[in-house]
Amino acid sequence: MGNDILSFLRKSKAKIDEFILEALPAEDPVPEIELLFAMMREYPLRPGKGLRPALCLLTCGAFGGNSDKALTTAAALELFQNWIVIHDDIEDGSELRRGLPVLHLQYNSPLAINAGDALAGKMWEVLLGNREIVGPQKGFAILREFTVMLNKTTSGQHIELSWVDKNRWDLSEEDYFLMCRNKTAWYTAVAPMRLGAIIADAPEKTLTMMVDLGLKLGVAFQIQDDVLNLVGSEEKYGKEIGGDIQEGKRTLIAIHLYNHADEGERSRITEIMNKPRQDKTPQDVKEILSLMRKYGSINYASDFAHRLSAEAKEMLGELPFDGDPLYREMLQQLVDFVVSREL
Amino acid sequence: MGNDILSFLRKSKAKIDEFILEALPAEDPVPEIELLFAMMREYPLRPGKGLRPALCLLTCGAFGGNSDKALTTAAALELFQNWIVIHDDIEDGSELRRGLPVLHLQYNSPLAINAGDALAGKMWEVLLGNREIVGPQKGFAILREFTVMLNKTTSGQHIELSWVDKNRWDLSEEDYFLMCRNKTAWYTAVAPMRLGAIIADAPEKTLTMMVDLGLKLGVAFQIQDDVLNLVGSEEKYGKEIGGDIQEGKRTLIAIHLYNHADEGERSRITEIMNKPRQDKTPQDVKEILSLMRKYGSINYASDFAHRLSAEAKEMLGELPFDGDPLYREMLQQLVDFVVSREL
Repeated sequence: MGNDILSFLRKSKAKIDEFILEALPAEDPVPEIELLFAMMREYPLRPGKGLRPALCLLTCGAFGGNSDKALTTAAALELFQNWIVIHDDIEDGSELRRGLPVLHLQYNSPLAINAGDALAGKMWEVLLGNREIVGPQKGFAILREFTVMLNKTTSGQHIELSWVDKNRWDLSEEDYFLMCRNKTAWYTAVAPMRLGAIIADAPEKTLTMMVDLGLKLGVAFQIQDDVLNLVGSEEKYGKEIGGDIQEGKRTLIAIHLYNHADEGERSRITEIMNKPRQDKTPQDVKEILSLMRKYGSINYASDFAHRLSAEAKEMLGELPFDGDPLYREMLQQLVDFVVSREL
Repeated sequence: MGNDILSFLRKSKAKIDEFILEALPAEDPVPEIELLFAMMREYPLRPGKGLRPALCLLTCGAFGGNSDKALTTAAALELFQNWIVIHDDIEDGSELRRGLPVLHLQYNSPLAINAGDALAGKMWEVLLGNREIVGPQKGFAILREFTVMLNKTTSGQHIELSWVDKNRWDLSEEDYFLMCRNKTAWYTAVAPMRLGAIIADAPEKTLTMMVDLGLKLGVAFQIQDDVLNLVGSEEKYGKEIGGDIQEGKRTLIAIHLYNHADEGERSRITEIMNKPRQDKTPQDVKEILSLMRKYGSINYASDFAHRLSAEAKEMLGELPFDGDPLYREMLQQLVDFVVSREL
């Protein structure tokens, strides 16, 4: 294990990829089934950061657990991310995922919804393997964490989709944080850390401490993601730049803008943001971007993410780690990476 | 327990409904979350036959198990059916489910896909309760049956959706049976029976015998469903009569027709069946129906279903039941009901 977080991410991603590709079948005598398998492998085969599995493995190691025993669970976290984004991409009308067309545009929506469900089935199947690795008691505890995570993620996604459905923009930062904590932060940070800690036998009190920490870290991750969506490089970031404006996404940036704009600007903002994606012109996107710059909304969000990440780092320092200190150092680096990353 | 299958179905459905409504939350301080809960409760609250949970409870009793211990698993089977049809209705472009508009027309597709995922999460959560009821070993075995079931169901659905995607009608009966066994028969009959038997401690050999039996019973159920879709009463059946023709569904009836029609009729059949739903006229539906009558396709399918059901009943007689004979009798009645039902 190197002591540099980027090299750790690369190595752990390679291990997870290997595990997942072995778990996902590729061949079948029935050609239709082989196509389903190809669809299930499509997102896992695309390049990704592997942040969530890495967070799980590092937390397990930092609490003195054997991170090899966390590999199955970490791979299941990656499978979770993969199936949930297949459905999210349909729900949000996204166009690119990790630099390539989304699955439902590559095939069609009915096939993609179903492939997402099939991948979810594979995730649960993989998790049943934990019985042999960590025993039935922890095996059940891990499954419970996954049901809580799915519950949180779908709640958050539902809140966001209802806002879109009702064309709502009169949202407070608190509204945003409630949505984001559920939709993204829980599965991005809370669950990976808790799972790693469970496998390492950390006590209940420690698991509870990870909720607040993970929520801060996960929200910081999402805000940074939204910043990169507007100012990043498409090549590194893997989605269309400005895509969030085209999707009319309720980001902290967009909510800050709406809450600071004057009345005339507000009606212009909602007019553009509520347009269906295909009706939005490049000029529309530019207009929103320039208003965001006028009100400092992007800087505001970026500062917010850095503040949250600093708070998460402080909380990390208070956790009763008892494993190899190298893991703790890498966890600290990972917290920094979440807001310093360009991809 | 009465000895009449219809009264058993009513009573067991009431128990399952009670269980499910207790498991599904209804209230939340956040109005958006309360809407998600309402969506999750929508299908479970609509009237249904509760065939799958009943099959599980009866099989458990017939093998001498305590059917109260199968209640959680039976309820999870009903939750499975509910979440999977939310997604299927979107994938197939259906309009009615149990006599009312499908969930994605009542709300919208993004919200409905997500509500299906949330309901799936609830199903897994419910299943974790088995650890306390039947112990960790059987608890894991039950979870494994559910992952196999999801795997089969999504494979079958994928096969059917690929045919639609490619406008394929050059299908053999064997193609149809492969699709139907995966898509419907496994979760309708194989899994419910195997689950009931697992809870009753039936040996592996018995579980294996249930695969062939369940596949026959499940395919018989589906064919009868397709017959009712064409000749049933909308009030009893709960879906639009002729809806399968409007959806262009590959039923045994439609495949029989295609394989027996002359060349001119064939091109007319594919022309009509491949039209998007909204372009199909009532005249189109009538034309297909009259061709189906001309070639005896509906009677052919109905006879086929009865033959499969008779074979299933014979296989049922060979199972080494060791519980109260009343359960076995009701199972036999249930097998008859599957093809004699009008709803």
